[in-house]
Amino acid sequence: MATLLERRARVLGPNMPTFYDDPVEIVRGEGVWLWDAGGRRYLDCYNNVAHVGHCHPRVVEAIARQAATLNTHTRYLHEGIVAYAERLVTTFDGSLSTVLMTCTGSEANDVALRMAQAVTGARGIIATDNTYHGNTLAVSHLSTRRPPPGGWPDHIRRVPAPDGLHPGGLDGAAFGQAVERAIAELQAAGHGFAGLMLCPVFANEGLPDVAPGFLDQAVAAVRKAGGLILCDEVQPGFGRMGSHWWGHQWLGFAPDVVTLGKPMGNGHPVAGVVARAEVMAAFREGFGYFNTFGGNPVACAAAMAVLDVIEDEGLMPHAARVSAAMEARLKALDHPLIAGVRARGQFYAVEMARDGRPAPDVAAVLVEAMKAQGVLMGRGGRENHVLKLRPPLPFDDGHAALVADALAAALAMVPA
Amino acid sequence: MATLLERRARVLGPNMPTFYDDPVEIVRGEGVWLWDAGGRRYLDCYNNVAHVGHCHPRVVEAIARQAATLNTHTRYLHEGIVAYAERLVTTFDGSLSTVLMTCTGSEANDVALRMAQAVTGARGIIATDNTYHGNTLAVSHLSTRRPPPGGWPDHIRRVPAPDGLHPGGLDGAAFGQAVERAIAELQAAGHGFAGLMLCPVFANEGLPDVAPGFLDQAVAAVRKAGGLILCDEVQPGFGRMGSHWWGHQWLGFAPDVVTLGKPMGNGHPVAGVVARAEVMAAFREGFGYFNTFGGNPVACAAAMAVLDVIEDEGLMPHAARVSAAMEARLKALDHPLIAGVRARGQFYAVEMARDGRPAPDVAAVLVEAMKAQGVLMGRGGRENHVLKLRPPLPFDDGHAALVADALAAALAMVPA
Repeated sequence: MATLLERRARVLGPNMPTFYDDPVEIVRGEGVWLWDAGGRRYLDCYNNVAHVGHCHPRVVEAIARQAATLNTHTRYLHEGIVAYAERLVTTFDGSLSTVLMTCTGSEANDVALRMAQAVTGARGIIATDNTYHGNTLAVSHLSTRRPPPGGWPDHIRRVPAPDGLHPGGLDGAAFGQAVERAIAELQAAGHGFAGLMLCPVFANEGLPDVAPGFLDQAVAAVRKAGGLILCDEVQPGFGRMGSHWWGHQWLGFAPDVVTLGKPMGNGHPVAGVVARAEVMAAFREGFGYFNTFGGNPVACAAAMAVLDVIEDEGLMPHAARVSAAMEARLKALDHPLIAGVRARGQFYAVEMARDGRPAPDVAAVLVEAMKAQGVLMGRGGRENHVLKLRPPLPFDDGHAALVADALAAALAMVPA
Repeated sequence: MATLLERRARVLGPNMPTFYDDPVEIVRGEGVWLWDAGGRRYLDCYNNVAHVGHCHPRVVEAIARQAATLNTHTRYLHEGIVAYAERLVTTFDGSLSTVLMTCTGSEANDVALRMAQAVTGARGIIATDNTYHGNTLAVSHLSTRRPPPGGWPDHIRRVPAPDGLHPGGLDGAAFGQAVERAIAELQAAGHGFAGLMLCPVFANEGLPDVAPGFLDQAVAAVRKAGGLILCDEVQPGFGRMGSHWWGHQWLGFAPDVVTLGKPMGNGHPVAGVVARAEVMAAFREGFGYFNTFGGNPVACAAAMAVLDVIEDEGLMPHAARVSAAMEARLKALDHPLIAGVRARGQFYAVEMARDGRPAPDVAAVLVEAMKAQGVLMGRGGRENHVLKLRPPLPFDDGHAALVADALAAALAMVPA
């Protein structure tokens, strides 16, 4: 009889990826825990989607109740989307006052690119050089991992992402100058300059050790050239930072457009774009937009429940407290292969390097060794050499101790 | 105090569209019925999303149960997506054997365009000239309703959609020749030819009166040029035709790629692409693809419940029976402004024309008059002159009688 893996390859395609050398079949989730088909429990440190914990009863109940009441599109009036959008914008500074709802972060970023085009009349976009912003055709052009058939389009230019292993790699002035050069190139090539898209914690680039203010010169260059700042908050957003609702608030800059995704509905497919009112109006005027499922009553009920839980359970101050404890535990590991430990709220990076050079082999071994000990996590960074931990926000100090102990044991197995 | 409409304009943007001169606030749905905030009941003849009926208890229960158990991504193994995909492909002929899951039909079409590119190495796409395939940047270029800022890209070419009001407008040979010319143009312009994308019932073009076999010459031209047939089944699919699961089975051609959307999860955001195995493999190899929410356990549970309901409640034979009765009732209206009545299962078009020319003014008045009588419907077609009725599949002959009577009354109010 065919195994689940064989059936999967047959019907989903032979090259559909899984995690881990020996993929896990997960059947149940609760809080920070996942269970496999054999009843084994894993601590989920990968998942920034199940933001307030797997299967949180308040989110589940909100989905179930609204799905039994009404689920239709936004060309009828509905209190759900309006009340949610009104509440969501209170977490931003006052100028980010309008909301567009989509189903995925990819759709949100696809819209953000067009917002920049609608406002500026130009197409040129700048992104960092080791990023990922999603899977639509337009957005996938920002990714560098895999050259697309036909090559990358000329109206996308990349600037070096901040990188602590690279001399001068954390210098905001140098980053700003790279942005200035890219703007000049786009203008010289006739594309004009529409905007700069980035993740404010550079999540896919391994959470490099930038400090608030890092982006000031880049932002000034974008403003001077009349472009928009498009801030992808899919990974750091919704209070993961602990100290702030949004990554850009921590880094200290004012984007024109913010995109939201994964954690927004705790796994329910809901995402969105928050923008200045005149940007939103220009986009709708220029492109028109309707998303059949986007902002439907069930999506908004799920998303509203997530905000309720974050506030009622005090998950932001909790994240800030646990972050400090977890960071201290990770730093105490003090292993020669660890080149750096970074914490941005409940988002942790442990950079593996050998002689100052990225050590993806070590990171790969550690991810498998942690899984063997019942801890699920991922890796990222330019060379896939950075351990990436993004647990659900209820992750607490007991879980942090468990992770640190498991990582100490895993490190002990790795030859220096 | 601000009204809901005013609050909506403030937080979603002033140019976010609604249906109807006086927009409806819908608060509850059940079966074919919707209720507004004042308790007024409407017969929903617009909604092809709530495919098996609003808030169908089996779909709601499937969503609630799975949301309380597990909702995570497809890089872990899960029986849900595999079992669903295996069952879905049994509704297609054997060559369409692999499935990719997304959240929206737009995402599915965005993938389909890249599948054609991955297989052919070319970018040139042909679409019909009054279509809509979705809202991502790449897919929106296929739409003709609104010129995008910066203009339409040159690698998209359009062929005249079938049109019964136009002499020769239903001639399959002429359509095939137009496709041949467009292929030659794309090749001459250096784009090469990747594929033809179309809706097999030309839903947005007013459900023109084409017959099975209409596409034969066009398909031959595409095959001869090495392109792919990309079939958008978002509107006709999942048994709406009554006689067939999919529109292309009715029209009688074999696509390489089929895209699915709206009805798939009865309103839950789930969509997908079904493709020949070698097309799927080429796409994944060329572009890579991961969709965080796509194919998650809750989406698959919702989609599986929809298939269960279609089969257990006999909704396809029901749709075929009701379709014949509804078509007869609409044809019996026999009004001088009605240029044609078409039925494709539970998808109905009533074409309004004056002296052989499209009469969008009449269609607009009728849509409002029907709403005033408690029947919600839309319009489409090249000039927005075709009444479009796509009720949930449980729509029955009693509902058909109600619609026909209301339409007779509405027509009586329109000056010929």
